[in-house]
Amino acid sequence: MKTEKFVPFQNVKLNDGFWKSRYDLNKYVSIRSVRDRFEDSGRMDALRFNFIKNGKRPHYFYDSDVAKWIEGVAYIMETDRASMAEHEKLIDELVDRMAEAQRDDGYLNSYFQQLDPDGIFQNRDRHELYCIGHIIEAAVAYYHATGKDKLLKIAERMCDCVWEAFFEKKTAAFSTPGHEEIELALYRLYECTGKERYREMAEGFLTRRGNEHIPDLENRPNTYAQDDSTVYSVSDVQGHSVRAFYLYCGAADMAYHNGDKQLMEAMKRAFYDVVERKMYITGGTGSTNVNEGFTVAYDLPNADAYSESCAAIALALFAMRLRRLERCADYGDVIERVLYNNGLSSTSQNGKEFFYSNPLEIRTSDSRKANIYHRSHKCYAPIHERVEDFKCSCCPPNINRFFAFFPELICVDGIEGACIEQYIPSEVSSAYGTLSIAGDYAVNGKVTVSSEDYKATELLLRVPAWCKTLTAKHNGKEITAEPKDGYLHIIVPSEFTLELDFHIAPTLVAANPEVSANVGRAALTYGPVVYCLEGVDNGGSLNRIILDSDSLKNATLTPDFHGLLSIETDAHRLQAEKNSLYLSLADLTEEPVRLKWIPYFAFANRGESDMLVWVRVR
Amino acid sequence: MKTEKFVPFQNVKLNDGFWKSRYDLNKYVSIRSVRDRFEDSGRMDALRFNFIKNGKRPHYFYDSDVAKWIEGVAYIMETDRASMAEHEKLIDELVDRMAEAQRDDGYLNSYFQQLDPDGIFQNRDRHELYCIGHIIEAAVAYYHATGKDKLLKIAERMCDCVWEAFFEKKTAAFSTPGHEEIELALYRLYECTGKERYREMAEGFLTRRGNEHIPDLENRPNTYAQDDSTVYSVSDVQGHSVRAFYLYCGAADMAYHNGDKQLMEAMKRAFYDVVERKMYITGGTGSTNVNEGFTVAYDLPNADAYSESCAAIALALFAMRLRRLERCADYGDVIERVLYNNGLSSTSQNGKEFFYSNPLEIRTSDSRKANIYHRSHKCYAPIHERVEDFKCSCCPPNINRFFAFFPELICVDGIEGACIEQYIPSEVSSAYGTLSIAGDYAVNGKVTVSSEDYKATELLLRVPAWCKTLTAKHNGKEITAEPKDGYLHIIVPSEFTLELDFHIAPTLVAANPEVSANVGRAALTYGPVVYCLEGVDNGGSLNRIILDSDSLKNATLTPDFHGLLSIETDAHRLQAEKNSLYLSLADLTEEPVRLKWIPYFAFANRGESDMLVWVRVR
Repeated sequence: MKTEKFVPFQNVKLNDGFWKSRYDLNKYVSIRSVRDRFEDSGRMDALRFNFIKNGKRPHYFYDSDVAKWIEGVAYIMETDRASMAEHEKLIDELVDRMAEAQRDDGYLNSYFQQLDPDGIFQNRDRHELYCIGHIIEAAVAYYHATGKDKLLKIAERMCDCVWEAFFEKKTAAFSTPGHEEIELALYRLYECTGKERYREMAEGFLTRRGNEHIPDLENRPNTYAQDDSTVYSVSDVQGHSVRAFYLYCGAADMAYHNGDKQLMEAMKRAFYDVVERKMYITGGTGSTNVNEGFTVAYDLPNADAYSESCAAIALALFAMRLRRLERCADYGDVIERVLYNNGLSSTSQNGKEFFYSNPLEIRTSDSRKANIYHRSHKCYAPIHERVEDFKCSCCPPNINRFFAFFPELICVDGIEGACIEQYIPSEVSSAYGTLSIAGDYAVNGKVTVSSEDYKATELLLRVPAWCKTLTAKHNGKEITAEPKDGYLHIIVPSEFTLELDFHIAPTLVAANPEVSANVGRAALTYGPVVYCLEGVDNGGSLNRIILDSDSLKNATLTPDFHGLLSIETDAHRLQAEKNSLYLSLADLTEEPVRLKWIPYFAFANRGESDMLVWVRVR
Repeated sequence: MKTEKFVPFQNVKLNDGFWKSRYDLNKYVSIRSVRDRFEDSGRMDALRFNFIKNGKRPHYFYDSDVAKWIEGVAYIMETDRASMAEHEKLIDELVDRMAEAQRDDGYLNSYFQQLDPDGIFQNRDRHELYCIGHIIEAAVAYYHATGKDKLLKIAERMCDCVWEAFFEKKTAAFSTPGHEEIELALYRLYECTGKERYREMAEGFLTRRGNEHIPDLENRPNTYAQDDSTVYSVSDVQGHSVRAFYLYCGAADMAYHNGDKQLMEAMKRAFYDVVERKMYITGGTGSTNVNEGFTVAYDLPNADAYSESCAAIALALFAMRLRRLERCADYGDVIERVLYNNGLSSTSQNGKEFFYSNPLEIRTSDSRKANIYHRSHKCYAPIHERVEDFKCSCCPPNINRFFAFFPELICVDGIEGACIEQYIPSEVSSAYGTLSIAGDYAVNGKVTVSSEDYKATELLLRVPAWCKTLTAKHNGKEITAEPKDGYLHIIVPSEFTLELDFHIAPTLVAANPEVSANVGRAALTYGPVVYCLEGVDNGGSLNRIILDSDSLKNATLTPDFHGLLSIETDAHRLQAEKNSLYLSLADLTEEPVRLKWIPYFAFANRGESDMLVWVRVR
């Protein structure tokens, strides 16, 4: 099977600019911050297997938290090992402890071995296979980066144990993971080692799922972990969103490796069900905290949005796998949406603090809702500012690994030539030669792609969905370039310079009319970037702001905000006469105001403030 | 103290028309339906004290459910005792059983005596004082209606027991009710018997509250039952909304009886905090199911509205008590809002089924949200059609008593003369003579008030808040009538006919701009009646409908709907090109449609259907 493959991040060198600065923020600050908090909270000690000594009770998914952090460090090491020397030492120490602690049968889990040895593989909800999956991913990454195979061998022995318990002797009390992840990890191990058994195990877990007749339980319905349907029959994506996307990543990998078109179609259904009905404009998914996941189509509340950072990352990983299956610009569009919005919003400007959920509206006056509860009920109220650590801290190390990995999303080695997927300034060593990508894409909509040694005759460039018209120049001369299936296909010689102008401009975007939360509202976007209003710039009570459809005609753009633009536009601010809660439309008065919009991802970096993405429009 | 008093419903005879038909529906259908369901569920048997025999385990507030039903029956008996003969027999039977079961010390509770005698007055959350309060109210009403004092004596002996346990010996494990209600009931008993002790007990409970330093508990914060502040210091109404209003009813009664201006001002603060910040346009309050109560100002979600039927009733009862304290048209306006909207919506057109919560939007496609849960979390999804009985069935008997009582809301014997508060066709035997109120107020905005024996020189008529202009005729001749403090003050002879035309017209209403849920939306009102769209008339996906500010210019009104009008208006229906979830504003296309609006209260009487009150407007 002739397929298209992403150019691995090892072959991509970021050049200075917006994305390099975010990469460096992760590399120099976030990774260290997560490490320090993981030391504080006992996560590192848990994997040192000295719970008894330090007295800090581990949680049953601590192993996965640390594994994701190791994976992130390993990615950075690929291009700058020296910078991670201190972390490498810590990882080696942890690996030594893990090797010592690993049982003869290969089992390894810091929680179960130290706290609940009788519970091993007895409780499907306790994330053991999920933890193993993340250790596999960390092991593959660390082996790639360092050549050291100690962790890889640990991971392989863990797989032996899983093989025995779930496939050979079937001694485990359950047959598929409660929290999916190991499926995609097993494909990575298969791709790394070439050993068929890992592929067989992944396929086993994937094809069993939905065939096990797992009932609705009192504490969770079977939709929660996608146990209600097989991966072949999925159409209405349900349940915990991170679990769903990890499962679908594994299923897409399966379709990639076995060429199963029916499975590929099922995964495309899953993708479009999400991006056409269940995705925030920021690329966030999973609209409720109740199940950290999906509810029903078009149910996308803003202030109560859950929109977990991990889910945004997982959606990008899923889209990437679908792109490996087929060339379609929709996947790159969704990846771009995640990157510039929910992806970046997860992390503070100082790199040390993180959001777990990423709301699209903050009314600071609502904070008291967090104190409303009765019995087991509780009003959901997202936090208004990022924090360094969470009790359930899955997101920060996932952010660590994703922001070390994202250069892999830039370019695909396609069948006819290279496909530029993301316009991130870099030097890409593609199979077809070195490509140089330059330009301030999210500032002026312009990019330059050039090469001096290009070995194909065609170059493909994704035309972003937000682009309505474009101009292209080849070696300085304007050329006709019509998108075909979402890509420009340009015939190029071995040495060329292509200049693209995607005609970026501020745009008012509407949601599908079925989205009740956004009725009568519009969002401001500028190319790939969703903008928001903050109280610190615009005063509180942002729902009083009203845009006209021509509000953008006097827009001014200022390149002053976190490497991107702030945008000023005209608007009005509504006042109600008296204190009336209900009044006739005519009793609303208004005064003109000038708004300052900032990129959504940059919200909540200047103290607690009201924030609004979807603004009243007429 | 010279005060104004509502003309008791015993002195009001409803005439044929919309409200008489709702009164009769309650009298002939709802009261019987509730009785039958209470027999089925074992509620009646619980008060027969034969739990052991029938095996149906009573709930700890069954007594209050039955007591409210008795109170409703008693109200009807005042004007038509014969019609309730069968119910009277049942009540007498229950009273006999209660008398037999009442302990020597006066204690009576079907749950605690049969199931948990050791728990008596030990657990503040178990509604004992609330149940006693409702039995007191039933006893007073039944005594008034029949002259039979057996239940009244039972209630008085229950009060002896409360006196001992909470005031004299203070043997109870707590000092104020967890669920307020007994305060207002004790004032009714005081007003009925003249015995100072009941007033003293009520004042005791009222002034203790908020001074007991009741802490936040794990299963409920102290705001839940208004334990965070004294009745004197309340400003931000919090917690369970029915509890709050019952407490404030008691406090308003206290201010009435002791003339405490500071307390009256506190109760006015509570009232305006609710009606200016926390009340649905339907008169519903308590926006979340979490605490069945208040969250924060302007948090009024539509599809998830809790808006309990009991809370609407309790708000009307509170407004009525404030009206007794001072003349102000705002109270009558709120009562009118409750009556025509959340009050009526509680009951099905056939009279047999009831809503507990009264949402302002139904998306039938959202029904699956009810199946989304994890651990103790659950997505809230209101039911879409009324049912005959609830496990917690406080609302149906509250509806029974309220719709037997509402004639008392029509007229106040004021200081200078009668004040007409509600324009409900009736003959009112006021202290100033017999007043006849006629007209189809909610159909054509016209009313006629006449008398042949009026004994004051001034007649006051509340000008509804929705009325912008009006014309008045005295004995057929137009007169100048300027509202003063919300009332027309008209000098009349002893024999007169006043014709008022409040110039009713369909109106688009906006919510205060702070109400996030209603940004970009408007509601259609017609006089006191809030209208809604139903899918059965207008197709599904009601959020696709868009109104223009001049949408009403071709409105047609048809007197065909549940005794009131349906209204047709022009509008457009939006279509999104393709399946895009996000698209530029210009990509929304639209087609003209003709809408049919029906009164909100009548929704969900023609099968499950989408429903929307707040409609997109531009």
